[in-house]
Amino acid sequence: MARIVQKYGGTSVGDVERIKKVAERIKLTRDEGNEVVVVVSARAGVTNELIARAKAVCPQPSERELDQLLAIGEQETTALTAMALHGIGVDAISYTGAQAGIFTDMVHTKAKINTINPKPIEKDLKAGRVVIVAGFQGINDEGQVTTLGRGGSDLTGIALAAALKADKCEIYTDVDGVYTADPRIVKTARKLQEISYDEMLELASSGSKVMQSRSVEFAAKYNVVFEVRSSFNHNPGTIVKQEVASMERVVVRGVALDKDQSKVIVSNIVDKPGSAGKVFRALADANVNVDMIVQNVGRQGVANLTFTVPQTETHKAVKALEPVLKAIGGGEVAVDDAIAKLSVVGVGMRTHSGVAATLFQALAEAGINIELISTSEIKISVVVHQDRAEESARVAHAAFKLDQA
Amino acid sequence: MARIVQKYGGTSVGDVERIKKVAERIKLTRDEGNEVVVVVSARAGVTNELIARAKAVCPQPSERELDQLLAIGEQETTALTAMALHGIGVDAISYTGAQAGIFTDMVHTKAKINTINPKPIEKDLKAGRVVIVAGFQGINDEGQVTTLGRGGSDLTGIALAAALKADKCEIYTDVDGVYTADPRIVKTARKLQEISYDEMLELASSGSKVMQSRSVEFAAKYNVVFEVRSSFNHNPGTIVKQEVASMERVVVRGVALDKDQSKVIVSNIVDKPGSAGKVFRALADANVNVDMIVQNVGRQGVANLTFTVPQTETHKAVKALEPVLKAIGGGEVAVDDAIAKLSVVGVGMRTHSGVAATLFQALAEAGINIELISTSEIKISVVVHQDRAEESARVAHAAFKLDQA
Repeated sequence: MARIVQKYGGTSVGDVERIKKVAERIKLTRDEGNEVVVVVSARAGVTNELIARAKAVCPQPSERELDQLLAIGEQETTALTAMALHGIGVDAISYTGAQAGIFTDMVHTKAKINTINPKPIEKDLKAGRVVIVAGFQGINDEGQVTTLGRGGSDLTGIALAAALKADKCEIYTDVDGVYTADPRIVKTARKLQEISYDEMLELASSGSKVMQSRSVEFAAKYNVVFEVRSSFNHNPGTIVKQEVASMERVVVRGVALDKDQSKVIVSNIVDKPGSAGKVFRALADANVNVDMIVQNVGRQGVANLTFTVPQTETHKAVKALEPVLKAIGGGEVAVDDAIAKLSVVGVGMRTHSGVAATLFQALAEAGINIELISTSEIKISVVVHQDRAEESARVAHAAFKLDQA
Repeated sequence: MARIVQKYGGTSVGDVERIKKVAERIKLTRDEGNEVVVVVSARAGVTNELIARAKAVCPQPSERELDQLLAIGEQETTALTAMALHGIGVDAISYTGAQAGIFTDMVHTKAKINTINPKPIEKDLKAGRVVIVAGFQGINDEGQVTTLGRGGSDLTGIALAAALKADKCEIYTDVDGVYTADPRIVKTARKLQEISYDEMLELASSGSKVMQSRSVEFAAKYNVVFEVRSSFNHNPGTIVKQEVASMERVVVRGVALDKDQSKVIVSNIVDKPGSAGKVFRALADANVNVDMIVQNVGRQGVANLTFTVPQTETHKAVKALEPVLKAIGGGEVAVDDAIAKLSVVGVGMRTHSGVAATLFQALAEAGINIELISTSEIKISVVVHQDRAEESARVAHAAFKLDQA
């Protein structure tokens, strides 16, 4: 008998028929003799509907009230899932975040989990019940409902798996697992059996939207092994864990493409100490997420700074730069939206050299120009023109032989 | 400065536009310098939608889970109402039943309120906040969500008014107040300025569907004076209280018509002690709500029993009677759906005789046959043929001069 935490996303519980399917799957796991704790998201679309209604009554709703409102989405699916289980003869009980003992800090709309009291759930498991917990939500010390922000339900699942010392944590979503590349772009992409937390994190931050980084970081911190898999079939998914058996032989684990970035070029700024610092301080103060940064000093003490930001934040970035450039004595700002960031990721890079060379050579042979380069211990990212983005992903995927099992 | 509890029904908070209107009304009351506590229902239709979804996943959903599910309807409108108030510059906070300290017994789907802890709300009122409380729900000693059953939001409003020692309790609904008769049937019906709890109770049980009896009984028990009024205009409504000033001069307060009853005639049963008792015990065991009862002993020790039941329970009643008639040695059952119950209500009847005579004479003059009669201290009810029902209401209304202010 194992203790298993399963998390089902909004698409998996999108309507009553899908909720009944989820119940069948839970029953299967239960009938194999396991203890099962289930975390569910709100039905797909419900959270956005509620936000729209909130904005219709008040353009800038208070975060405390927004949390109070949004929490009902998951409360609905938990109760419906428990009922669906009753309907097929499985004893089950639904809990809100508060009832499940998920205590958070005081920050509304993006609370952090402080502690989980495992006692109520332990008691139900002992009594033979399946426990259904509302994802995405908790309660603070003042008894106010809080929500955990984007990807919050994954976080609830992984945090519960840690608190309950679960043997297994299954994250059910609408994709089959983690692939070596996006199968819509790279036809030969393969599903990975295993991936390390670090690789998963780099893929997530490189445009591969399977899970939010935050949940993966939490899993890494508490060493929660989890599996990403689909709720629409019974295929095995991808196991995410600390150390991956095949790690040493595989250099690159996957390729990711992010087409939602812009390149910002700040040119002709006076190259004196502190100029770059002032530029990035201003961007940070304006809450702009800067990703890749390149600085080159040109002729006669004039420098150029190039960096990438999410396209949605370009306007904010340009606005934040205006007063700074005035203060440091001039410079021009140009923006290029027609770019894409290609990343190759693999913990094997740590001990294998030549990854950059292989990538650059392959792209050069395909005639694809590299506009920016940045590297981390387990990732190399390059910026290419958006017209060549998908081709560059296919070229990289082939260059590292990712299509070969 | 007064302390006012306002309760808004599901039609009043039916969509975001109406919620904004409700917020304006709350602000008006607040701006007059009052402390305001607001109870809201779920948006009209939401509770039924949720029940439909529950039945789609499980034909007989558990009551615990049903409560967990249904509670979200009011949680939504409380948060939206608080946001709408913020939008027009009024400080406000929303509470679930649990957060508002509404503790109930352990009975799901029709819980009774045990206690209300007024401290959290008192604290907010002191801080200058409007407090929005979810109607219809509470929490039991095990931390489970409970709901109060039909009319539960009115009950929340009145119970909060009692617990908070409010100066005034306003029940906003989609009608203007309590009328001397249903204005759709009796064109000359007038809105009553005041009515006593007892009269309101008799009207409610006689087919006048302004409020559930339960809430009125609770108000009477704790002597909570409340006003029934419309959220769609600013007309004064009807004040409901213990003693009504004009009581002694007015004999009959209003006329009510109930067309949803059936007449059941059990004939030719042996008239021996205990027969009638067995009949009504069987009906009670089957949860049939029997209203008017008439027994007449016919020739040679054979008795007839006639009574009325809600039309929805006729089938249940007939089924429950079968074994009983067998046990007591025979009898026949006949059902007549084409009836209506006309009631005239007024505490003035206590000291004034002749009400029955006036009613019977007026109906006789109009050629309307009376099939059954029952009387209480402040009410006389007669059963008439359904074809003459509305006419009989108009005749009674005129006979007691209810159209005269």
